[in-house]
Amino acid sequence: MRILSGIQPSGTIHIGNYFGMVKKMIESQNDGELFAFIASYHALTSVKDKEFLEKNSYEAAINFLALGMDPEKSTFWIQHDVKEVLELYWILSNHTSMGLLERAHSYKDKTARGLVASHGLFSYPVLMAADILLFDSNIVPVGKDQIQHVEMTRDIATSFNHAYKKEILTLPVAKVDEEVATVLGTDGAKMSKSYNNTIDMFTTSKQRKKQVMSIVTDSKELDEPKEWENCNIYNISKLFMNEDELKDLQKRYLTPGEGYGHFKLTLLEKIEQYFKPYEEKREYFAANPKKVREILEFGAQKARKIASEKIKEIRDIVGLI
Amino acid sequence: MRILSGIQPSGTIHIGNYFGMVKKMIESQNDGELFAFIASYHALTSVKDKEFLEKNSYEAAINFLALGMDPEKSTFWIQHDVKEVLELYWILSNHTSMGLLERAHSYKDKTARGLVASHGLFSYPVLMAADILLFDSNIVPVGKDQIQHVEMTRDIATSFNHAYKKEILTLPVAKVDEEVATVLGTDGAKMSKSYNNTIDMFTTSKQRKKQVMSIVTDSKELDEPKEWENCNIYNISKLFMNEDELKDLQKRYLTPGEGYGHFKLTLLEKIEQYFKPYEEKREYFAANPKKVREILEFGAQKARKIASEKIKEIRDIVGLI
Repeated sequence: MRILSGIQPSGTIHIGNYFGMVKKMIESQNDGELFAFIASYHALTSVKDKEFLEKNSYEAAINFLALGMDPEKSTFWIQHDVKEVLELYWILSNHTSMGLLERAHSYKDKTARGLVASHGLFSYPVLMAADILLFDSNIVPVGKDQIQHVEMTRDIATSFNHAYKKEILTLPVAKVDEEVATVLGTDGAKMSKSYNNTIDMFTTSKQRKKQVMSIVTDSKELDEPKEWENCNIYNISKLFMNEDELKDLQKRYLTPGEGYGHFKLTLLEKIEQYFKPYEEKREYFAANPKKVREILEFGAQKARKIASEKIKEIRDIVGLI
Repeated sequence: MRILSGIQPSGTIHIGNYFGMVKKMIESQNDGELFAFIASYHALTSVKDKEFLEKNSYEAAINFLALGMDPEKSTFWIQHDVKEVLELYWILSNHTSMGLLERAHSYKDKTARGLVASHGLFSYPVLMAADILLFDSNIVPVGKDQIQHVEMTRDIATSFNHAYKKEILTLPVAKVDEEVATVLGTDGAKMSKSYNNTIDMFTTSKQRKKQVMSIVTDSKELDEPKEWENCNIYNISKLFMNEDELKDLQKRYLTPGEGYGHFKLTLLEKIEQYFKPYEEKREYFAANPKKVREILEFGAQKARKIASEKIKEIRDIVGLI
């Protein structure tokens, strides 16, 4: 079973990304063959800045390697190192009706939010279909906002298979993990970079402390008993503490004498403890860019081997001799 | 000065194609560096038939080689052998506004005529822009219906250069040859395969004779003097005869004793004479498919050398390390 995941080339990961998506992706390496790529071509739909794209593609690679992406077990590459995807994208474009693309919610949403209505943004779902179909992916883990794109991929693949009277493209299934609770930020809203309410991974101790200390609480005094339910500190603590630790924390909420500052320091310590091994691994990769390049090239080779066989089959079927 | 021309993978060429476009293209090899490719990727917007596309791509190669395409002097290749064009296509897509594409006449015309409104058809002008810009083409000879596409290419290139603050893409100029008169068919309408009024090149003698003999005339008898002006036979004869030969033909129109059948046979003979050397060359290539493949691969290598340097420069500028 093949699982395909795209990774945004983003320099920073916050704990909302981690518990929302990244952790599942890393764990999925035990469920099947994971194909994970850093989506540099997709990034061009919004990024027009060379340094930004280069830096963030590279940082994304380091972050995911640090967090447990296993380049031997999985196939891990940067999208633009496997160009076959663009040939499939063009071929699929001729089996994608304009009506299908015009109904895409995400394009409407993005342009409504002010992104430039470019052809790249509009045709993004066709490139995503190519990403998925090139590797005969069976499962595509997605957020709810991306379910429609996987459905479009199925429509395009069906249309192609029908045109050439052969089941050449594998229809993927979207996997939406209902269990993943939305991680709340320091202000209680959904954690998001754009809300400036994140607690970042792979940042300086100083910065992380600042973020944790900024968690919004009510203004109960040290000597008042406090409520843990709906407390932002407690909510975030649930991600890092086991049952016993949480029970202990609940007691401290009820017992006068400690304030929110104390609970924040306990949380901070747990976060640092939790991510310490990842940070050490990240430092190793950050200090060895040559090694990182080798890993990505190794992944690209593995991906190209599969992609080139698949595209050969497809070229042959459409008549590109 | 670089001249870029795309060739439709079409198995047959009629004399309307030849005098309208092909001859000029062959002659342009003396005006500058000609880059000519068989547009297999573009063909996918309408062709969903493997055998048809393979056969016609190959036939187009043979036809153009027979007609004087010089693979040493010019760069002559099949589009899908130089994949860099698709990477540029994707990159340019992110600098192409949807509004620009929505204003394209040719998409509206084609869908109005019943072609499926596919994403490939819609985005065709972006692929054409990539074809042109990948080779820093200066001149693009086009029919009037394609002028808008070259203008769109200039818009896209300008937008890209502006975004990255560098004059990296060369703005092309459309060259519309006003001199090229529309070649009329056997029924006096514009010669076109869809009107079934063509006189084909590279066909059997029997078929060509049938086509020439089917030229529509008035019904004047052998012993009546005839008018050459607006006569379909005379109009087509003008393509193949010099001044003296035409004067001689005019006399025969005026002199009773000969009928249209005689003039048709004279025209047929001139046509056969005109195309004989090309036919011999075509037979040579048709009998040597290995040689043809070698020539196309040689052309692809020349094209790839230029394309890979250009795309490297562009990748570097956008941040695809």
